[in-house]
Amino acid sequence: MVIALLTDFGTKDYFVGAMKGAILSINRQAVIVDITHEVPPQDILAASFTLRACYKNFPEKTIFVAVVDPGVGSERRAILLETESCYFLAPDNGLLGFIFDEEKNFKVFELTNKKFFAPKVSSTFHGRDIFAPIAARLSNGIQPNEFGTEIESYTRLKIAQPIKIANRIEAEIIHIDRFGNLITNLTKNELPENFTLEIGGKIINKLQNFFAEAEKGELFVIAGSANFLEIVAFQASAKQILRVEVGEKIQLRIN
Amino acid sequence: MVIALLTDFGTKDYFVGAMKGAILSINRQAVIVDITHEVPPQDILAASFTLRACYKNFPEKTIFVAVVDPGVGSERRAILLETESCYFLAPDNGLLGFIFDEEKNFKVFELTNKKFFAPKVSSTFHGRDIFAPIAARLSNGIQPNEFGTEIESYTRLKIAQPIKIANRIEAEIIHIDRFGNLITNLTKNELPENFTLEIGGKIINKLQNFFAEAEKGELFVIAGSANFLEIVAFQASAKQILRVEVGEKIQLRIN
Amino acid sequence: MVIALLTDFGTKDYFVGAMKGAILSINRQAVIVDITHEVPPQDILAASFTLRACYKNFPEKTIFVAVVDPGVGSERRAILLETESCYFLAPDNGLLGFIFDEEKNFKVFELTNKKFFAPKVSSTFHGRDIFAPIAARLSNGIQPNEFGTEIESYTRLKIAQPIKIANRIEAEIIHIDRFGNLITNLTKNELPENFTLEIGGKIINKLQNFFAEAEKGELFVIAGSANFLEIVAFQASAKQILRVEVGEKIQLRIN
Repeated sequence: MVIALLTDFGTKDYFVGAMKGAILSINRQAVIVDITHEVPPQDILAASFTLRACYKNFPEKTIFVAVVDPGVGSERRAILLETESCYFLAPDNGLLGFIFDEEKNFKVFELTNKKFFAPKVSSTFHGRDIFAPIAARLSNGIQPNEFGTEIESYTRLKIAQPIKIANRIEAEIIHIDRFGNLITNLTKNELPENFTLEIGGKIINKLQNFFAEAEKGELFVIAGSANFLEIVAFQASAKQILRVEVGEKIQLRIN
Repeated sequence: MVIALLTDFGTKDYFVGAMKGAILSINRQAVIVDITHEVPPQDILAASFTLRACYKNFPEKTIFVAVVDPGVGSERRAILLETESCYFLAPDNGLLGFIFDEEKNFKVFELTNKKFFAPKVSSTFHGRDIFAPIAARLSNGIQPNEFGTEIESYTRLKIAQPIKIANRIEAEIIHIDRFGNLITNLTKNELPENFTLEIGGKIINKLQNFFAEAEKGELFVIAGSANFLEIVAFQASAKQILRVEVGEKIQLRIN
Repeated sequence: MVIALLTDFGTKDYFVGAMKGAILSINRQAVIVDITHEVPPQDILAASFTLRACYKNFPEKTIFVAVVDPGVGSERRAILLETESCYFLAPDNGLLGFIFDEEKNFKVFELTNKKFFAPKVSSTFHGRDIFAPIAARLSNGIQPNEFGTEIESYTRLKIAQPIKIANRIEAEIIHIDRFGNLITNLTKNELPENFTLEIGGKIINKLQNFFAEAEKGELFVIAGSANFLEIVAFQASAKQILRVEVGEKIQLRIN
């Protein structure tokens, strides 16, 4: 069984090693895959986006363990989401928000059965003491409802939706990747052939199919690999050129 | 068999890939786990702390390969530490210091049997040419005493111990993690209910059980997940607020 | 079968996770190893050097997937290189240049058979949609010639060769590692006992066998673990001391 990890723990401390050790101590056959541990500290939105952008590439029955957990040790709940194809373990703080929006049929369980936790649970590291052992036990065949009771309400994430008024759409940047590409909340279907897009005081009206046909530093729109439209610059960082951050508004006019 | 790696090689060069390739060339079934490769270059203390903080989470018989090796190619010895539960391979430079302090019954072997090294040993990369092949052969069932002779003396690490005089304790910061949390050499038992702690010119007298009950930027003491007391700030970096480094002294007064 | 990955995708986004998921979805038994994902963005030379420096350490039949791909989505070809010991998948942009120079007997295939690609191929992420699925299918036993037709011409990399005139050699820096060590295009055989080497306005005439015998900050030449001569500084960064970059010229005089 594949167990895929996504955290904001970084890779310089012992945190990720401790989680992997805890998993392998319970299931030596688990195939552990790192998605990333470089989510910006406590950035639940970035974590949720990253998870959504790759979870469908994984095999059926993959167990995703996503830990970005500013409220660790407090009353926030820990949950298990079971969809038709896979499992997600995470704190109940919105981290699974994009998944809830994407999936139709699913069940959510609160993780309350302490016999599946580590013998001693620290107040600061539930990744090691709760999520890792439960992931390993789930991979060993323990059923979801044994970890706790099904719940009907849980924390959704308020993901900005594009607002359409007549021939205008107000959208926004929901993620920025390592290359400085700006991922918007628009999908390709929403972009007509003729458009004018304004962001950071600049106008963009070119949609391209791939990177290589542009000039260096030229800004354009492209259908990105996470199924959202992205604002990018050829061989340059659109983020640096436009000096924008996540949350920046985009004005789109359909001509 | 699990082989867990901890180095200061970073992740941008070929070093870690070469070690993994060398292991898999000898034992294709080895389960290789990265603890970290981001130990600050040549920081033996940080490496030793990180190893100590997670090794007990790993399965029995795990082989830890720890390479932070300023003296590579010189006369410094390479050693194998066998404890009751697992194995450690490292240069004999103090890197296993925290483990020596933590374990009771163990044996130490000097790695001298060259038939288990790579056919050609470079003078700069023993991680690939000595430690990786020996880890792989150990995982294949070669016995510790076949790699070399048992030795009685080896390099300990001088880890600062808290000094207690009457109602005062002088302690210090032994590690700082990615979040800027300051790990001290004090354990929870050493902290009474009423205390005054001074560090970096500031006074802290609050012990909390978890992060979420504090105010943003507020400094407090918490029992960390590595079993030491930590000085932390809620949703902020205690390191940045206090402007301290590893080795900073702490004055603790018991009230 | 081992599948080893080398990219410039970084580790903070979903890219590497998506590639691994795509591989495991086709072959759950694949052993995936990260060489690095921290190649400087679009630096084909650095990628090629890194691959060359470690590929011989891997087991026979390893499948290397190397993706640094400024031309993704354009007409650049995707290729499979089959040598006597292993396989390489990469864009045809010079990334395999060092390997072509190193190997004698090999075949190159253009990846044209779309039935082995992902059902839907994005224009920006062939790592996930072409290279990962083909790597997985190759590891499942599909033969190289089923992925496309053999080709005779492909992109070599212009790797600077040392130029020898009488008792002088002009060489250059071809790579700089995490520690600031400067890897040259000279091998140990090319360096006589007595030499004067000039770089960045400084003179170096000392060849050492390992690091530990020097003084801190002292510059010297050493035979590096990638089989090239390196200009290094003991416990310091030669790059910072000399303020040089990849491509810097070296004047060597044989005395």
